[in-house]
Amino acid sequence: MLKSYLPIMSWLKDYDRHALSSDMVAAIIVTIMLIPQSLAYAMLAGLPPEVGLYASIMPLVLYTLFGTSRTLSVGPVAVISLMTAAAIGNLALEGSAEYLTAAIVLAFISGLMLVVMGIFKLGLLANFLSHPVISGFISASGILIATSQLPHILGVSAKGHNLLEMVIAIFNALPSTNIATLLMGSSALAFLFWSRKGLAPLLQRRGLSAHLAGLVSKAGPVLAVIATIAVVWGANLTDAGVQVVGTIPAGLPQFTLPVFDGALWQQLLISALFISLVGFVESVSVAQTLAAKRRQRIDPNQELIGLGTANIGAALSGGFPVTGGFSRSVVNFDAGAHTPAAGAFTAVGIALAALFLTPLMYFLPQATLAATIIVAVLSLIDLGAIKRTWHYSRSDFFAMLATIVCTLLQGVELGIAVGVGLSLLMFLYRTSKPHSALVGRIPNSEHFRNIERHQVETCEHLLTLRMDESLYFANARYLEDRVYGLIVKYPKVKDFVLMCPAVNLIDASALESLEAINHRLADSKVRFHLSEVKGPVMDQLQKSQFLEQLTGKVFLSQFDAWQVLTQEK
Amino acid sequence: MLKSYLPIMSWLKDYDRHALSSDMVAAIIVTIMLIPQSLAYAMLAGLPPEVGLYASIMPLVLYTLFGTSRTLSVGPVAVISLMTAAAIGNLALEGSAEYLTAAIVLAFISGLMLVVMGIFKLGLLANFLSHPVISGFISASGILIATSQLPHILGVSAKGHNLLEMVIAIFNALPSTNIATLLMGSSALAFLFWSRKGLAPLLQRRGLSAHLAGLVSKAGPVLAVIATIAVVWGANLTDAGVQVVGTIPAGLPQFTLPVFDGALWQQLLISALFISLVGFVESVSVAQTLAAKRRQRIDPNQELIGLGTANIGAALSGGFPVTGGFSRSVVNFDAGAHTPAAGAFTAVGIALAALFLTPLMYFLPQATLAATIIVAVLSLIDLGAIKRTWHYSRSDFFAMLATIVCTLLQGVELGIAVGVGLSLLMFLYRTSKPHSALVGRIPNSEHFRNIERHQVETCEHLLTLRMDESLYFANARYLEDRVYGLIVKYPKVKDFVLMCPAVNLIDASALESLEAINHRLADSKVRFHLSEVKGPVMDQLQKSQFLEQLTGKVFLSQFDAWQVLTQEK
Repeated sequence: MLKSYLPIMSWLKDYDRHALSSDMVAAIIVTIMLIPQSLAYAMLAGLPPEVGLYASIMPLVLYTLFGTSRTLSVGPVAVISLMTAAAIGNLALEGSAEYLTAAIVLAFISGLMLVVMGIFKLGLLANFLSHPVISGFISASGILIATSQLPHILGVSAKGHNLLEMVIAIFNALPSTNIATLLMGSSALAFLFWSRKGLAPLLQRRGLSAHLAGLVSKAGPVLAVIATIAVVWGANLTDAGVQVVGTIPAGLPQFTLPVFDGALWQQLLISALFISLVGFVESVSVAQTLAAKRRQRIDPNQELIGLGTANIGAALSGGFPVTGGFSRSVVNFDAGAHTPAAGAFTAVGIALAALFLTPLMYFLPQATLAATIIVAVLSLIDLGAIKRTWHYSRSDFFAMLATIVCTLLQGVELGIAVGVGLSLLMFLYRTSKPHSALVGRIPNSEHFRNIERHQVETCEHLLTLRMDESLYFANARYLEDRVYGLIVKYPKVKDFVLMCPAVNLIDASALESLEAINHRLADSKVRFHLSEVKGPVMDQLQKSQFLEQLTGKVFLSQFDAWQVLTQEK
Repeated sequence: MLKSYLPIMSWLKDYDRHALSSDMVAAIIVTIMLIPQSLAYAMLAGLPPEVGLYASIMPLVLYTLFGTSRTLSVGPVAVISLMTAAAIGNLALEGSAEYLTAAIVLAFISGLMLVVMGIFKLGLLANFLSHPVISGFISASGILIATSQLPHILGVSAKGHNLLEMVIAIFNALPSTNIATLLMGSSALAFLFWSRKGLAPLLQRRGLSAHLAGLVSKAGPVLAVIATIAVVWGANLTDAGVQVVGTIPAGLPQFTLPVFDGALWQQLLISALFISLVGFVESVSVAQTLAAKRRQRIDPNQELIGLGTANIGAALSGGFPVTGGFSRSVVNFDAGAHTPAAGAFTAVGIALAALFLTPLMYFLPQATLAATIIVAVLSLIDLGAIKRTWHYSRSDFFAMLATIVCTLLQGVELGIAVGVGLSLLMFLYRTSKPHSALVGRIPNSEHFRNIERHQVETCEHLLTLRMDESLYFANARYLEDRVYGLIVKYPKVKDFVLMCPAVNLIDASALESLEAINHRLADSKVRFHLSEVKGPVMDQLQKSQFLEQLTGKVFLSQFDAWQVLTQEK
């Protein structure tokens, strides 16, 4: 019991020196990667850079205690940072104290929601987010994020509430481009793009092992950070108009209680729900991918608690919403992280950075951070998924396209809402007209098949309809309509059998429809029978009056029904 | 083609004197019933009484042309009137010109929505309203309506936005009860209650046939109207403070174009959608009940067009939202209505009433109309349905209870929204963990059964999971989770077979999950196979890359899979 709520207990007792050294190595590599990321994603969320560092300390420690993935690296990620900016951008001015307050409250509510979902095992809420919707949403977010960072590369100020506004604003701001910033930003961008593919082979040729070269190449952003800091400092480029990060307060985060302001909480509720669900879905997907490689197990409901406490921890230490990040977790895994302790060691690394390294980052150009973000998010844009979905299923594609268009033009929250709504609508549409067939008997057998596809015996006063789907509210009315249509079409029918071998569920709506069918068939002087009703469904029906009111019988097998009803005549 | 959009063409050519006389008789009876109802429901909607008459003329004519039910009586109904009052009550003051304008626009938007749904065959939208939600909503509406009419019976003024506020307001207003009004109102109420059960037997004892007595007894409200008008006029009760209907402008409705005000339209959009759906669901249910008795057929999508044009007609002639009413339609049916022409004749009757009878209604007490409404809506409250749902299914009951409580305490629109949301959530919950079983071979057979329930052969490097449900976004993640769990639990497994005899659909989300399973099993050195995939599902899978990437094979039958995979060892 305790073990299932505190997964740390399942690995801590076997923790040895070997695991310690593996985790330490991984932690050092992830720390180096996380420092520029945490600063960059704080900037993306519209928050001061130190908030990014704060969000990379406590959350990691708490996930170590409560998370079930051994290698997931929790912290600020691009999409959640974008959603944070969208959620609080309308409530407060960027840079104001209220903005930070709102970000903290958002992390807190989001954390509470995740913990509650975990306790009540409500991870199924994430099922509302179908793959095409999530995939479309992430791609669209990638486009939005990359576009939002372009002004930093150009050294201009340009904002917009949607893609169109942003593009127009950037276009209008082009004449005031800062050449020094553009040169630095585009060099950083070029270097980072190259380093993703070119750095590892180069290092290998210099004698590093393939594995080590791969890991070191992930430090590209840090190299870019160091190089551009040096250039800005050496060439005194701040005088040339290059925007830098500036003073970052040194020290560890302070314990802060989130503001309990009813109106603010209400305004952030929906945003927090979306952030929780998107963060959870992305994080679990990463965790499962990595766990499968080592035949380990992820418990999605415990993951909710792990991510929830991480977000509450972020809020209590002045951070903003976090979740498990894809690229960082892969690096953590590749670097050999053995247990979640690697996350805790990473937290120590970030804490040391917050204590001692912040003065060094004064001259860090915002353009470098923007370049880091752009390179990271362009990999989120998955055009292949759009194409594959188009080929596989038009209705899924339609939901995906609507999500993308709405996210780009109307914002992230409406984008998700529209996608979810359309998925549900389309699912209802698909199941609202389930497959069904009139069946007849294959001569001299006990088998019954579709009368349109097989040579079968029928009997003019007996009609048998086989439903190939559970009966529930989405198709209950269709069932009624189908039956009434058949009764009008076959006026000689006196006995109607509903054959239910594939019916796993009859909900209250479908029960009402069956009752209505029973009554209306009686009005038409037709008896209503059932056959091959599954055990659990029969148990359920016995809780209602339906079986007593039924004008016909319930037959164990369709062959029984056939024998009794054809001989009665 | 034309015939399907103009159902009148299917019966008009056979129209004869017999049908004419049946329809005329039915029309006279329904007209007598509809006059007090249309005044009462206009009052309930907060509109002047003549608007009720206007809503009972054009809509009936249009439904005659476009509707598919032969006996449905379209016009103002209680629940839709309540929803109308709720929708526009917040936008304009009752009695103001803006209030009427909003009601007209509401009918127009609702009509447009219904027509559009009909053209695009979107009647499935009504599937979102499950039976328990609709039933709970109607019961709660009945309670709200009955309570809202109590002040009229007491002769006091008391309003509230929800049941609690109304009850408190009525309680506070009790001391100012008008005795004359209370006496009249309660007598009308007592008479109407008695007439529902007692009038028909009395008339039968006086020599009327059972059928005729039943029909005449439906005229109870008209008797109450005539009697109370006479009393108020004779005893000069207006001086005693009895509120009467007052001057109703005589004449036919004028053609009016609804106001095209963007802001107003937007405010009414959601309300119009709810009104459309609830009206449609109720109306179709009545129509189908009656049609079945004569083995006639209702086309739900054409019904959308019929009800849609009726509402557009209501708007263009200064009326408010209408739909098919239950009690009136039953009377129409019982009175022998043969074709929809009965509806058109009823419209003529109401038109005559609007032209010539309005002066007679000056002294009609509001208490009488309130009594009419109360008696009508108390039959909407279906406690039996609540009890039956409780016994049949707790989750359906929960959705119903939430709908009732929210409707009573938060208003009709939130009530429906919460009910729909909960139904969807509960459905996702039920299907998110579909039935599945590990199967083994029944010795010396080609049959495979659940290993927990049967004595079956298994093979330690081969695991077969049978899924008993279509695979789609709601259960895709569960499937992944289940498979990964099994792989961890059975570390010796080298081949994993997913047996799909009951899988009717694999949507894009489930496809992604299958691809993820394939990759992750490969990471765990396990091959992934499928067996017994249905034809259409296989066709769909062939549109993706999945089958090429599959590490294992697709077997036609589970027995093939068993033979190949156990012998390979």
